[in-house]
Amino acid sequence: MRIAFDAMGGDHAPQAMVEGILQAAREWPDTRFYLLGLQEEVQPHLPQESLSNVIVTPVTERIETDEEPVKAVRRKKDSSIVRGCRMVKEGEAEAFISAGNTGALMAAGLLVTGRLPGIERPALAPVFPTLNQQGMLVLDVGANPEARPEHLEQYALMGSLYAESVLGFARPRVGLLNIGAEEAKGTAFTKEAYSRISALPIHFIGNVEARDVLSGNCDVLVCDGFSGNILLKNTEGVAKAIFDRLKQEFTRTAFTKLAAAILKPGLKRFATDMDYKEHGGAPLLGLQGPVVKAHGSSDSRAVFNAVRQARLYVKQQVTTRITEELNRLERG
Amino acid sequence: MRIAFDAMGGDHAPQAMVEGILQAAREWPDTRFYLLGLQEEVQPHLPQESLSNVIVTPVTERIETDEEPVKAVRRKKDSSIVRGCRMVKEGEAEAFISAGNTGALMAAGLLVTGRLPGIERPALAPVFPTLNQQGMLVLDVGANPEARPEHLEQYALMGSLYAESVLGFARPRVGLLNIGAEEAKGTAFTKEAYSRISALPIHFIGNVEARDVLSGNCDVLVCDGFSGNILLKNTEGVAKAIFDRLKQEFTRTAFTKLAAAILKPGLKRFATDMDYKEHGGAPLLGLQGPVVKAHGSSDSRAVFNAVRQARLYVKQQVTTRITEELNRLERG
Repeated sequence: MRIAFDAMGGDHAPQAMVEGILQAAREWPDTRFYLLGLQEEVQPHLPQESLSNVIVTPVTERIETDEEPVKAVRRKKDSSIVRGCRMVKEGEAEAFISAGNTGALMAAGLLVTGRLPGIERPALAPVFPTLNQQGMLVLDVGANPEARPEHLEQYALMGSLYAESVLGFARPRVGLLNIGAEEAKGTAFTKEAYSRISALPIHFIGNVEARDVLSGNCDVLVCDGFSGNILLKNTEGVAKAIFDRLKQEFTRTAFTKLAAAILKPGLKRFATDMDYKEHGGAPLLGLQGPVVKAHGSSDSRAVFNAVRQARLYVKQQVTTRITEELNRLERG
Repeated sequence: MRIAFDAMGGDHAPQAMVEGILQAAREWPDTRFYLLGLQEEVQPHLPQESLSNVIVTPVTERIETDEEPVKAVRRKKDSSIVRGCRMVKEGEAEAFISAGNTGALMAAGLLVTGRLPGIERPALAPVFPTLNQQGMLVLDVGANPEARPEHLEQYALMGSLYAESVLGFARPRVGLLNIGAEEAKGTAFTKEAYSRISALPIHFIGNVEARDVLSGNCDVLVCDGFSGNILLKNTEGVAKAIFDRLKQEFTRTAFTKLAAAILKPGLKRFATDMDYKEHGGAPLLGLQGPVVKAHGSSDSRAVFNAVRQARLYVKQQVTTRITEELNRLERG
């Protein structure tokens, strides 16, 4: 297998990226890793003795996190993001993973790798951590903020397939994000999406409310990109605000510090359960090949897990199966 | 002043409602409280010695929390919710407060109290607790899930006025909920709303992301009812899930229980800061008179605070000022 990896993207690039890829290269000697990066920045992090399955692939440009995505992708053709997406397009790599500029990766996925026939807009599908540690695939979280009901129908199909093939859910429970649990709730948009998803050959469990997001009462949550983005950022923001405040209370006096030390194992267990790093990256579903967004704050462990997930994505032939299901849907 | 209060709605009705109103009646002897409820259920909670400014006003019907709102409002004309909204309409009360079925209160507000001229759909505007304890008014959270950009323009105007007059913000910072901070972010919908709100005579600070909701970096957050409902339920759901899990970790052993006891004052301080009960109820802005939704789990303290807030709502003549501003907007 051949996997391309963006060494330049992410808060801890390139060090964490190189370390994660070296771990992955040792774990999976059958896989060749193409490490895309600026030679002078990547080189210092490489070990004395090179690994035969890690191929440093020099690029000359870098897309920064705050660059306007579409412009950056059009201008910087020799950036790691554009090069990686092109390698997937041209079959030089079977998957590409980046922790860089999310918008640029989505734009390059769309413009360079390209969509599957019948897919108008791909969906960005991260795994939200849940309290039961299983995680929940949510799509779309912002690749397509102006979604139509038929897009959500495709998300439901693609999400169910991915959750089954890659995340290991036996018969994924697919829910529709809505403002009430009953079928008649919501807008004209959600009602049409509900009706379309109901007709699919998947395990659709109906509407799911935003209050249940952490409890993991569905395995795949389908929504438009605007709502999904709000859900993602709100979940992260509320959790962070609460933990920041707890930290403040816990470090107030010597006494509270002592008490917090006793509670530390429990807090740590909780933090581990809620850690996105264990869940790998977010696939851009609906492209001609696997393009995966790793979290911007990925460390080497998150990189390693993103690789593990991308390998399954390739092995399970998810792209081919999505194409088949879409054809079946159109014929039906 | 005359305030009507629904004794039948809420998880702790009628006891918490009666207790809260008795406290309010002692605090504000200048105000007459019309306690709307089923006589046989309210009576046992009244004190031996009656207060001259609490007038028990019997009704014969009750709208349950799970009833279909519009049907219930049409059928149960002698329910506390319909009667209270009619009292405001007919000037028998200057405000009505209920902790009952939210949908039914919104429907009765719309169908019985009625909209202000120029307002197509009122907005439900709760105060979200923020870490800085100031709170943030969010509208709409679900009265109007299929909003148009011109509705958001009205929300911005009404929300700013209410935050200034009732919540005490000197020059409320009004933000637009969006999936990015830059002006060009979002959908055609948010872009048009942005442009309309920019032209208003209020302190508009631009787009605000869902990750910042608890930090209180704006005072009034404007959004469509679908997104707002997701934001509200997700915020509540994530906070509850985290605290439930913490409780579980803290009560695991005798040791952790001891440690948790030491941390209790800090946790309690945090819980108080985040307590919606301190922030009163959620007004339905855009109606012909003040109709306020109190939280479903309101205790007597929340009832008392909802009354304090409703009194300001009336005293500050918010409804008249909204009408004037809307007229100015239309003329402009």
